[in-house]
Amino acid sequence: MTTVTANISTSLDGFVCGPNDSLENPLGDGGERLHEWVYDLASWREMHGMEGGKTGRDDKIFAESIENVGAVVMGRRMFDNGKGPWGDDPFEGHWGDDPPFGVPVFVLTHHARKPLKLGETTFTFVTDGIERVVERAKEAAGDADVSVAGGASAIQQSIEAELLDELEIHLVPALLGDGVPLFERSDVHSIELERTRVVESPAVTHLRFRVQSVGVRR
Amino acid sequence: MTTVTANISTSLDGFVCGPNDSLENPLGDGGERLHEWVYDLASWREMHGMEGGKTGRDDKIFAESIENVGAVVMGRRMFDNGKGPWGDDPFEGHWGDDPPFGVPVFVLTHHARKPLKLGETTFTFVTDGIERVVERAKEAAGDADVSVAGGASAIQQSIEAELLDELEIHLVPALLGDGVPLFERSDVHSIELERTRVVESPAVTHLRFRVQSVGVRR
Repeated sequence: MTTVTANISTSLDGFVCGPNDSLENPLGDGGERLHEWVYDLASWREMHGMEGGKTGRDDKIFAESIENVGAVVMGRRMFDNGKGPWGDDPFEGHWGDDPPFGVPVFVLTHHARKPLKLGETTFTFVTDGIERVVERAKEAAGDADVSVAGGASAIQQSIEAELLDELEIHLVPALLGDGVPLFERSDVHSIELERTRVVESPAVTHLRFRVQSVGVRR
Repeated sequence: MTTVTANISTSLDGFVCGPNDSLENPLGDGGERLHEWVYDLASWREMHGMEGGKTGRDDKIFAESIENVGAVVMGRRMFDNGKGPWGDDPFEGHWGDDPPFGVPVFVLTHHARKPLKLGETTFTFVTDGIERVVERAKEAAGDADVSVAGGASAIQQSIEAELLDELEIHLVPALLGDGVPLFERSDVHSIELERTRVVESPAVTHLRFRVQSVGVRR
C-alpha cells in the first residue's frame, strides 16, 4: 500500500525556512542552519551524484526517507519561491539541470504550466488542489510511496485534508525567530498523532508520527 | 548557582493552550489535552496534597522540575488569563486557596497590585519588566533555582533577554490548530540551543535544551 509521508527539518520555534526567502535566497535568512545535518550524509551525497560522506543514524534516517519514494508532491514555493503567474520565461526551479528526484514530481500551484522535464525528473504542475495532486502522485507511484517534500503549506494542507499518513520532523535546536512556520493556525481540531519513533543524534532530534484521522473539523 | 528553567507542555503545532482561553477556560479549547500526561503522576499529586499516582519516567521528570525551585516567575495571563487593570475586586488567580507552589511567585504585569498571600504562597506583582522579575525571583530563591512557569510570553521574553538557562519542552503529539503559541515571530536571531536530553514516554516526548547566548539581535 502506498504510504504518504512528509519529512521536514524545523527549528525549535517551528520554522522550516528563515525570513526573506526568495528565488535567490530559497531557505531564507539563517535557513541553511536547518539543513546542515544533511549535507554531509552519504545517502544525501549519493542522491546528488557524489561519493563518500557520513554514515550513522542521521544517514539511515535520510536514506529511509528516500528509499521507496515513487513520486513527490511539492508546493509552488518549494519549486521556485514564487507565486502568481509563471510569466513568459519561467524559472526552472531550484533543482538544477538534473534534479535529484528521479521520480515524477507534482507541483501544487494555482497557475497552469506545461510539464517540465529536467534530467530524469518530470515536474507536472497541478492546479486543482491538494487532494488531486496527492491522487496523481499516488497513481504515478504505483506500489511505491509518495513523499510530500514540502514546503510547509503543502504539508499543512495534506494533514488538514487527512491525506498524510506519516510525518517525520527533524527538530534542529536553533531559534530562527521568523520565517515560514511548519504549522500556522489551521483548520485541524485536536488531530491526534501517534509518535512512532524518536531518534537522537548529536545535531538533531528525529520525531516520527503516524497521523490519526480522529480530527473533527470546526 | 541559581539556574533559571522553564518547563512547558506544547502541542506538535506549538501551542501551549487552545483557542478561547479565559478566566473560566484557562487552558483554552482542547488545551487540557496538553496536560493529561501529568495529572496522574505521583509527584504532581503530592504537590497538590494528594496521595498515590503513577511513578516512572514522566513522574521523575515532573518531580525534577519542581524539586529545587526556590521561586517562580509567572506571566499575568497564567495568573488569571486577564489583561488590563485589576479592578476593585481582583480575581485571586487560578491556583485556589492553597496554591501548590509554596515558594514566592513573581507575576509579570503592567498593572500594580499589592502582594497576595494564599496559603504558603505569596504572589508579588512586578511591573518593571522581565529582567527585574527574574532578578527578584533569583534574590528570593537564594541558592535554589528559579522556574519560569509560563505562559508562553514570559518564556519568550526570558529567552530573548538571555535570562533563561534551560528549557524543557514536553511535546504532546496532538495538533490544536489554534491557541497561544510558545514561540511567535520574535526578536531572536539564530539563538542556538544545546539539546541535553530526550526522554520518550508513551504519552509525551520530553526535550531538554540548554539555551546558548550566541544570539545576535537584529
